[in-house]
Amino acid sequence: MPLHSLDFHAHHSPLGAYASFTCGRFGAGGGLAIEGTRPPTQDLVIGYAEADGVVHALPFYTGALAKQEDFGLAAAADDKPRRRPLEAGLERHYGRGSDRWTCGDFSFAIHTPVFPLPDPDHGGTEALQDVVLPVVAATLRLDNRTCAHARTLVFGISPGRPCRMIDDAGDGLAVGWGLELGLAAARQPGLQAWVEWDEQAFLRHGRSHLLGAACGFVLTVPAGEARELDLVCGFHRAGVVTTGLETRYWYTRRHGSLGSVLKAGLARLPLLKARAAEMDRALAASALDDDRRFLVAHAERSYWGNTQLLDHGGKPLWVVLEGEYAMINTFDLTVDMCCYELARNPWTVRNVLDQFIDRYSFVDTLARPAEGATRIAHSHNRDPHQLGRFVPPPAATGLPGGISFTHDMGVYGHFTAPGTSSYEVSGLAGCFSQMTAEQLVNWILTAVSYVHASGDRDWLRARAGVFASSLESLLNRDDPDPARRAGIVRLDSDRCAGGWEITTYDSLDASLGQARGNLYLATKAWAAWLGLEHACTLLGDADRAATAAQGAARAGATIAAHFDTALGWIPAVFEAGNRSAIIPAVEGLLFPMRWGMAAALDRAGPHGALLAALERHLCAVLRPGVCLFPDGGWKLSSTSDNSWMSKIFLCQHVAERVFGIIPDPASHAAHARWQQIGSRDWAMSDQCFSGEGKASKYYPRCVTADMWLDA
Amino acid sequence: MPLHSLDFHAHHSPLGAYASFTCGRFGAGGGLAIEGTRPPTQDLVIGYAEADGVVHALPFYTGALAKQEDFGLAAAADDKPRRRPLEAGLERHYGRGSDRWTCGDFSFAIHTPVFPLPDPDHGGTEALQDVVLPVVAATLRLDNRTCAHARTLVFGISPGRPCRMIDDAGDGLAVGWGLELGLAAARQPGLQAWVEWDEQAFLRHGRSHLLGAACGFVLTVPAGEARELDLVCGFHRAGVVTTGLETRYWYTRRHGSLGSVLKAGLARLPLLKARAAEMDRALAASALDDDRRFLVAHAERSYWGNTQLLDHGGKPLWVVLEGEYAMINTFDLTVDMCCYELARNPWTVRNVLDQFIDRYSFVDTLARPAEGATRIAHSHNRDPHQLGRFVPPPAATGLPGGISFTHDMGVYGHFTAPGTSSYEVSGLAGCFSQMTAEQLVNWILTAVSYVHASGDRDWLRARAGVFASSLESLLNRDDPDPARRAGIVRLDSDRCAGGWEITTYDSLDASLGQARGNLYLATKAWAAWLGLEHACTLLGDADRAATAAQGAARAGATIAAHFDTALGWIPAVFEAGNRSAIIPAVEGLLFPMRWGMAAALDRAGPHGALLAALERHLCAVLRPGVCLFPDGGWKLSSTSDNSWMSKIFLCQHVAERVFGIIPDPASHAAHARWQQIGSRDWAMSDQCFSGEGKASKYYPRCVTADMWLDA
Repeated sequence: MPLHSLDFHAHHSPLGAYASFTCGRFGAGGGLAIEGTRPPTQDLVIGYAEADGVVHALPFYTGALAKQEDFGLAAAADDKPRRRPLEAGLERHYGRGSDRWTCGDFSFAIHTPVFPLPDPDHGGTEALQDVVLPVVAATLRLDNRTCAHARTLVFGISPGRPCRMIDDAGDGLAVGWGLELGLAAARQPGLQAWVEWDEQAFLRHGRSHLLGAACGFVLTVPAGEARELDLVCGFHRAGVVTTGLETRYWYTRRHGSLGSVLKAGLARLPLLKARAAEMDRALAASALDDDRRFLVAHAERSYWGNTQLLDHGGKPLWVVLEGEYAMINTFDLTVDMCCYELARNPWTVRNVLDQFIDRYSFVDTLARPAEGATRIAHSHNRDPHQLGRFVPPPAATGLPGGISFTHDMGVYGHFTAPGTSSYEVSGLAGCFSQMTAEQLVNWILTAVSYVHASGDRDWLRARAGVFASSLESLLNRDDPDPARRAGIVRLDSDRCAGGWEITTYDSLDASLGQARGNLYLATKAWAAWLGLEHACTLLGDADRAATAAQGAARAGATIAAHFDTALGWIPAVFEAGNRSAIIPAVEGLLFPMRWGMAAALDRAGPHGALLAALERHLCAVLRPGVCLFPDGGWKLSSTSDNSWMSKIFLCQHVAERVFGIIPDPASHAAHARWQQIGSRDWAMSDQCFSGEGKASKYYPRCVTADMWLDA
Repeated sequence: MPLHSLDFHAHHSPLGAYASFTCGRFGAGGGLAIEGTRPPTQDLVIGYAEADGVVHALPFYTGALAKQEDFGLAAAADDKPRRRPLEAGLERHYGRGSDRWTCGDFSFAIHTPVFPLPDPDHGGTEALQDVVLPVVAATLRLDNRTCAHARTLVFGISPGRPCRMIDDAGDGLAVGWGLELGLAAARQPGLQAWVEWDEQAFLRHGRSHLLGAACGFVLTVPAGEARELDLVCGFHRAGVVTTGLETRYWYTRRHGSLGSVLKAGLARLPLLKARAAEMDRALAASALDDDRRFLVAHAERSYWGNTQLLDHGGKPLWVVLEGEYAMINTFDLTVDMCCYELARNPWTVRNVLDQFIDRYSFVDTLARPAEGATRIAHSHNRDPHQLGRFVPPPAATGLPGGISFTHDMGVYGHFTAPGTSSYEVSGLAGCFSQMTAEQLVNWILTAVSYVHASGDRDWLRARAGVFASSLESLLNRDDPDPARRAGIVRLDSDRCAGGWEITTYDSLDASLGQARGNLYLATKAWAAWLGLEHACTLLGDADRAATAAQGAARAGATIAAHFDTALGWIPAVFEAGNRSAIIPAVEGLLFPMRWGMAAALDRAGPHGALLAALERHLCAVLRPGVCLFPDGGWKLSSTSDNSWMSKIFLCQHVAERVFGIIPDPASHAAHARWQQIGSRDWAMSDQCFSGEGKASKYYPRCVTADMWLDA
């Protein structure tokens, strides 16, 4: 597919190994890492050596962007490394299954197929091992059929520490460093594995030096022939890898060493390549334009790079890490990403829901805010020295609350104590405050989505009590006093201890910051009421279903009533004269749509007024200067330049499918540029500031783009 | 002791854990690492908070060297971190057991006691566990007895990744990050452990934030009181930690987790402090001047930071890593460091000797060099693109050789295949070539030193065959033809494959580079003959003892005969008109001295001519412009500015004890400055170029300084 720039990093990852072979950014290297929260910076030399010894390599290697004379070509007599970047005619084909670089008669492709993950709780234990094999496959190819002399395919990687030959990878040749990272290739004539200070030293001396901090392969390609060099990158981390909970990587149940992984990878290589090619073809056959195809493929890569399948006392534990922040199963990501998982592996969603119930739920009490609370500015600053924290004391505390769930389960390998997250602290009004109401809503939405997608009535029945508690909790977060209810979140958890609750949009501005009276969260609450109605109906609990339906009716009416005809849209916060326009007003519509609740989305149905208001809102805000950037990209809030790709993708899907509002292709081109150019150092970035990826880097949530492919 | 500068890094390490708490360099941070080959760069904030919230900290923290206004003092209204470096009146007391910083009423000390390691093969298994507990103890103290307000002791460390509370460290409070690194403190009133973005955020908010990438402790010190905060830094790496051989840290036999280590560390803390104080007192009572005391203490710290006691299938495996290069048990270090070990734990030396015999020995054949070989320049360049490798083909190859040993056993956690090292490659004449003859000599010298120091006749008898083989091998390396023998190394191993052998002095110049006809190695060979004579005599093998004695006589005569009266010294290489003057001519004298072979060192004895020649040599070269730097420091070779501390120390010891040549105290001051100023970024550096530590950084070998304390 045509790209706006070839020069950007991409995650290339196995499934559930929290590992990546990252490359693509020119002059920046890349390489292999387990549990990396940013792209590695190993030098990468991938290309071929000419007869004169000069290595023509993809422009990944350190210095590829500099003038050639700086890198030894002018000083060849000094025996310095001699490399020349493959630039003229270089192409990058960024498919869903493969990321392929071609330049003349040379090509390099990385294959990252995605397979459904079999359910280990329902007979899939062994089959699951096959698909979570922690390897990434790659292929170098040189077509020497029209060349009159032999040339040499070269793959070199420099991890910055001594490398080694790996001798337990079966029949293959293998190199690597330490216990955890390495590469293997099946034996073939002309193939050599090497360890040296760089590929030039090996090419010159023809023998390895085990002090060398680089390793790789060379393959002689005779004149008049074409040769392929298939590699597998292997990852293996043994033993306990987390604290708080003692867990291990699931793949270690089958593979005790890196050598074992590499051996299995070589055997599986043909299957990996075939599946990657199949994924390339399927995306190419879709109705999406090139920019959206790119976004789907790019987002999916960074999703898998953040996944981790752990073994907790013999039971699977599914984790998605939060990109550069590395928080564990951040719930406001889970809810957005669950559509992707539910189409493939619903059990991973059930697994996370169960973790939230069993370890990361709690029961709180609530506070009624004092009048005038919003006169204090919300802080969206993540600087710990600039946190928003001066809030008038609440008018009342200790009001009945209910069940909710933590923002996350910990961070970067550490599972926090039951009922606590790594993110949330007390006493704040802004970033790092509690997200109690949002996570209750997220649990409901995710749980109903799971039940709908999986048809798993056993789980629904087993968790009926949680649904009932969630209903009660949501009612109380509206107001414990039935007479005061409006269907939306209007109280704060006492966990705020004088601060107030926020939403997932912690680093945007006030328009999406506070939870109380927030339009975005109100629509999601409306969906949660509908979800509870749906679940309670399935459970045969007509009373609770009716209560939930009342909640939805109240919420819809409240939201619709806040349409401000003077503004032309619904203000983002129903307090203190807020005038911001926000696209995520429509986020909540996603869920009844996915659940097939046609009546709820019927303009002539019970929520017709809400739908009409939201459609009018969306049409009004999707205008340049309001919620469109000058380049056509979507701007989540009229009052912030920080716009999040994952949420844009989700809202575009709602706009298109619920309202028939087809996004301008210019927006897709803009969003593709934000990634290919604006976030080129970071693989997928979620938070883009006027088109520059500046936060939430190396991030999984953008896999919401996958919804676009729904039939 | 008075220092030339306070501003330098030091290793603070447990015994055999290949771990360090490194700090001391201003503005550079430091911190905890396992298997680190250079100082960590974690931010370190160690000091106290005043009532106004400003933290007065030792100048380790990032930015401590910058102007205060750059670090928030001028911008205090912005709630930026506010730190002020403790500078005026700052003192550093660099003892043998403790490294203590004091500034006014604040002090910080790090305690690194050294205990003998009990022999696990002779009943010491459990006792060994006690002394290899992987902790480092430290104490913060604030004397508030004359202060009218409370102040707060602060310890903060920022590893650059999320931190955690550790809840399995027994009664103590503990913080850390990941599974491997953490700190604990015994509970006391006013003590809090914290995790936050930095110490300022914790001091301001008074609560932890588990996303924070810093952690530490604070202790309130009430007005009118003095308080101490004792800490233990704990290290724990579980599971297999090496490749080639599967080994684990010995301490993991007792401690399954970091929490277990920290708990044990708190219990052992009083003992650690007491022993460190005892070591301080012992060094202070020695006859050495301040500079030499510093060098002894500094060298010993970096030695232990490079030690690793491993469990290989239930048996202990002793490893010393080679500083920044991290080669495993480099034999030309072992031989120099064994004096230190033999005075404490002879079994570690035996352990290494056995490893060399059982896995890293081989039998080679030899080559007789062509005439004129030395006309080709030796390369002392470690750049792999600049290696010396154009050597005339040897005149003969395949001559009988014999047993020898590899240069090392691998590098940075990878044990190379039996009979091979990571360092040595073939076809070179210079750096990275084979060190076959030197390592044979080193095995003999180390083995005889072990037998002499331990009195272990069982081992001597069990290894009698190796002594016999070594004798034969050394004879052949002189010449397989008895008629040609001169007592010194004159042939190259066929492993050189057309190159030639080198010595440990790989990166000096030709004066110490090639093995063949090398004065330094000749004197060590002379000592090796004497050692073999001693060993064979103990074994009752009179024939071999006589053969060895003949070798010593030949070597002594050959060396003495090369005294060049025109030059005034013995040239460094007995070939091709070399004129360099080298101090290490006398290195070999160390061994018969340590073995108590008075006859060999008797001026009127059989080696009187050799001793006279070497004494005359040493007196001649220890002159400014020859082997003294302008600052009085010793210059190992007249033709190289690269001088190695470890070897200087050894040669000073020989000069003093064998010849009564007392080094000028100015030399000790110069050497202390080379470390405190010239190598301040690297803890102990061995290779100093005109006083600048430029290679062999973070290095163990300088523990040769310990010989100075011999009675």
